[in-house]
Amino acid sequence: MSKIRVVVAGPRGKMGSEALRMIRKDDSLELVACLDRKNSGKKVSEVEDLPSFDVYIYDDVVECFQAVDADVLVDLTTPEVGYIHTKAAIEHGVRPVVGTTGFTKEQLEELTKLAEEKGIGAVIAPNFAVGAVLMMQFSKWAAKYFPDVEIIERHHDQKLDAPSGTAIKTAELIQEVRESKKQGHPDEKETLPGARGADVDGMRIHSVRLPGLIAHQEVVFGSSGQNLTIKHDTFHRESFMSGVKLAIDQVVKLDILVYGLENLLD
Amino acid sequence: MSKIRVVVAGPRGKMGSEALRMIRKDDSLELVACLDRKNSGKKVSEVEDLPSFDVYIYDDVVECFQAVDADVLVDLTTPEVGYIHTKAAIEHGVRPVVGTTGFTKEQLEELTKLAEEKGIGAVIAPNFAVGAVLMMQFSKWAAKYFPDVEIIERHHDQKLDAPSGTAIKTAELIQEVRESKKQGHPDEKETLPGARGADVDGMRIHSVRLPGLIAHQEVVFGSSGQNLTIKHDTFHRESFMSGVKLAIDQVVKLDILVYGLENLLD
Amino acid sequence: MSKIRVVVAGPRGKMGSEALRMIRKDDSLELVACLDRKNSGKKVSEVEDLPSFDVYIYDDVVECFQAVDADVLVDLTTPEVGYIHTKAAIEHGVRPVVGTTGFTKEQLEELTKLAEEKGIGAVIAPNFAVGAVLMMQFSKWAAKYFPDVEIIERHHDQKLDAPSGTAIKTAELIQEVRESKKQGHPDEKETLPGARGADVDGMRIHSVRLPGLIAHQEVVFGSSGQNLTIKHDTFHRESFMSGVKLAIDQVVKLDILVYGLENLLD
Amino acid sequence: MSKIRVVVAGPRGKMGSEALRMIRKDDSLELVACLDRKNSGKKVSEVEDLPSFDVYIYDDVVECFQAVDADVLVDLTTPEVGYIHTKAAIEHGVRPVVGTTGFTKEQLEELTKLAEEKGIGAVIAPNFAVGAVLMMQFSKWAAKYFPDVEIIERHHDQKLDAPSGTAIKTAELIQEVRESKKQGHPDEKETLPGARGADVDGMRIHSVRLPGLIAHQEVVFGSSGQNLTIKHDTFHRESFMSGVKLAIDQVVKLDILVYGLENLLD
Repeated sequence: MSKIRVVVAGPRGKMGSEALRMIRKDDSLELVACLDRKNSGKKVSEVEDLPSFDVYIYDDVVECFQAVDADVLVDLTTPEVGYIHTKAAIEHGVRPVVGTTGFTKEQLEELTKLAEEKGIGAVIAPNFAVGAVLMMQFSKWAAKYFPDVEIIERHHDQKLDAPSGTAIKTAELIQEVRESKKQGHPDEKETLPGARGADVDGMRIHSVRLPGLIAHQEVVFGSSGQNLTIKHDTFHRESFMSGVKLAIDQVVKLDILVYGLENLLD
Repeated sequence: MSKIRVVVAGPRGKMGSEALRMIRKDDSLELVACLDRKNSGKKVSEVEDLPSFDVYIYDDVVECFQAVDADVLVDLTTPEVGYIHTKAAIEHGVRPVVGTTGFTKEQLEELTKLAEEKGIGAVIAPNFAVGAVLMMQFSKWAAKYFPDVEIIERHHDQKLDAPSGTAIKTAELIQEVRESKKQGHPDEKETLPGARGADVDGMRIHSVRLPGLIAHQEVVFGSSGQNLTIKHDTFHRESFMSGVKLAIDQVVKLDILVYGLENLLD
Repeated sequence: MSKIRVVVAGPRGKMGSEALRMIRKDDSLELVACLDRKNSGKKVSEVEDLPSFDVYIYDDVVECFQAVDADVLVDLTTPEVGYIHTKAAIEHGVRPVVGTTGFTKEQLEELTKLAEEKGIGAVIAPNFAVGAVLMMQFSKWAAKYFPDVEIIERHHDQKLDAPSGTAIKTAELIQEVRESKKQGHPDEKETLPGARGADVDGMRIHSVRLPGLIAHQEVVFGSSGQNLTIKHDTFHRESFMSGVKLAIDQVVKLDILVYGLENLLD
Repeated sequence: MSKIRVVVAGPRGKMGSEALRMIRKDDSLELVACLDRKNSGKKVSEVEDLPSFDVYIYDDVVECFQAVDADVLVDLTTPEVGYIHTKAAIEHGVRPVVGTTGFTKEQLEELTKLAEEKGIGAVIAPNFAVGAVLMMQFSKWAAKYFPDVEIIERHHDQKLDAPSGTAIKTAELIQEVRESKKQGHPDEKETLPGARGADVDGMRIHSVRLPGLIAHQEVVFGSSGQNLTIKHDTFHRESFMSGVKLAIDQVVKLDILVYGLENLLD
């Protein structure tokens, strides 16, 4: 089987450099170019802190796709740049895999239509952590049978917002299947305010912040005599790469745009 | 909406008496009779340690179904008695919900055919713990994406067999979707034998036995930079009743025999 | 070695009946009488739901201690009755083991002085769960080195107050050794109120309430690159009996009053 | 208060470079020199991948201590080099903090005697992870009251040996206080060999190996109706630095040699 030829946009970023390391270790993938506003004309191997690939860096997306034969574009840049790259990729028959939460509804609709017209697969994912996506899907499923649920998420103490985006997203997914319900005893009292956590439609979310932690979440379902817990631990950002790899493997078989990694998990 | 009329077979057993307590608390269910080889002719309320229901106990299944109008038979007896009850129920238009692992393949085929002929729903479930069934289904799903998996099950120290039946069943379900793979470092060494647990097709199972514990299992999936854990805790045998209730609610809508609670969880 | 002869006060209560079951199973203990305002003159074996002991029930404490030779009184009644029992026991040379949080400071001082005068050991314990007491002691110790700490306590959803008494007590013990410190990022924001839990001197307490749970607490200490967690799970109230047994074994060696099980754990 | 002046030996190693980063962030510490067989005569800031300190590197320990005024030597080299450094440090009135398991009994005795003669504090520690040391101390304490214990340790799947050294060390410490006891049901059967883990004097050790994990251990004590769990998670090797810092702060107050971090934790 021939290798999948990949262009990575944003190679100097945290995610982008992880993507290069992942491609280096994976025999089924081949890096054929990078897109970067800096270092155009240099080889990747000439850029400090990047893995030693003998391929060129381009700053112009069209020039890049004309110069190299690519199957997939992995875009880990910003929503603004990513939109331009994604559109150009579809137009040049290169399948885009894009990690972003930032595309507008109009942009998504336009890109979906374009992919359909060209019969070109595309994957746009707000979250590439396969484990986190599965945690959310399982939680949504379990909530049909266990409406009493609390979410405990734990992060390092440099995190500014509580609860985390993933916790809120999980609660929203559960809300789609769970009837609104106040949990706990009807007469329960907080003798110290905040003890029972944040309230989302009766569900409770608790945010732990401690040094040493990275990113962790457990979703706990309670029922008479039993508990079911679904827990995801992120120890390192390389965890996102299993999702990028999955998207690359799937996008070459697709002829439409798919939004959200969960729609690639059958 | 009218109540579902239930006959309970095996009311003096641990599961049977829990079923009576569950029916007592549930406004949508009505106990109309019990089947028991003892105490025939008495009322349930006359039997020591049973909840105070004003309904009769029968020892003959046919006599029972002729005497009362029942929608559902909940059978929590033995495989031998359960088989006779189940067959009689279907023939009398009463939908059976049976908790057993003991029916033979021939018996299951016969009952499936009979239910189909009569157009009568039936549910036969080896495990009524909804949480445990979900844990197994989620594990099977997750294993598609995370082939590195270890199972840690924990039980009270009066348990004789290790690993538990649920752990073995979980591993078997995972095997259906996971390619055979030896886990851990190829050169790993046990400096103390048994440290790495039991080996099922490369997966590892660890059995903890301690006083105080009841029945607990966690299935841990590992991947670069992340872990996904699915955990079920049984604190009390009343946990099985959520599955019995689910089966009762579903069986009245069915016109075929369904084997396994997982096939009622959409 | 001769058995320790025990009188149990409050045999029909939840704790009292557990104490009887514990004595039944323990070859080093012998029940010689019970104290109860009901059933005076009957034998324990004649009272419904109690283990079948062939010893008498008394309602008068002085009469009891005159009638039987006892080494230890295990008092699991109310603070009011318990106070009278404890005083009488010390005066009759019977060592009391009392489970209560309800004695006043004056009562404790009086009993301490009385025990000292008589040279009679006595144990008064607000909490007989050895595991919970150790959890609190370990937490106090760990907090010297790890000032960033959050407490997550989990109870069944019939509990009225949040946080639990044990969580508050744990935080108070930690406060004795931890310098006051606001935890988390100085600029952290709760986008949903309550997410970060209750604040005790900068520490955070989170109270989970779900059906199925019994009584559980974890104390989590965070530091650069590591976490230390101390967790106690109560699955059944018989857990308290290990502390009652410990107190019985120790009280026969004591000649003063000791308050708090932690002071018996060397 | 003046800063503690520190020499770091082994600055290019994993631990040594963490130590430099720790000193950089800590206002109470000042780096005054490094000891390294390479780069002698250069400044630390001139060596690739090291933090930018404006102090010199020496390859000769005596020359170093003659050239700079130092309070503490942090030695993170090998046992062979570390022994020479430690001896020289004590002779020059510099207090050594040494991370090693490799000194012989004779070497330890000689260094202990030398430190005593000179009245110079010294700390030699096989393990600098304060959390892991506390976990072991707490476990030893808990085992007095709860003799039923199992250890579950989890590491990345590149680890070669099972069980881990920390698990074995923990079991040995517990053995000092726990009476020998076979755990589990006397008639328990492994239907799959290894399920019950490794056996150390009746205690059981289970070794989980999965990608994504770093270094984790839980010690679980079981008793009627309760469990007590002590858990340590290492997420990053910077966790060792809290122990190095503790040792530096203590060694300047000591006038003898202390072996093992646990003896600095009061």
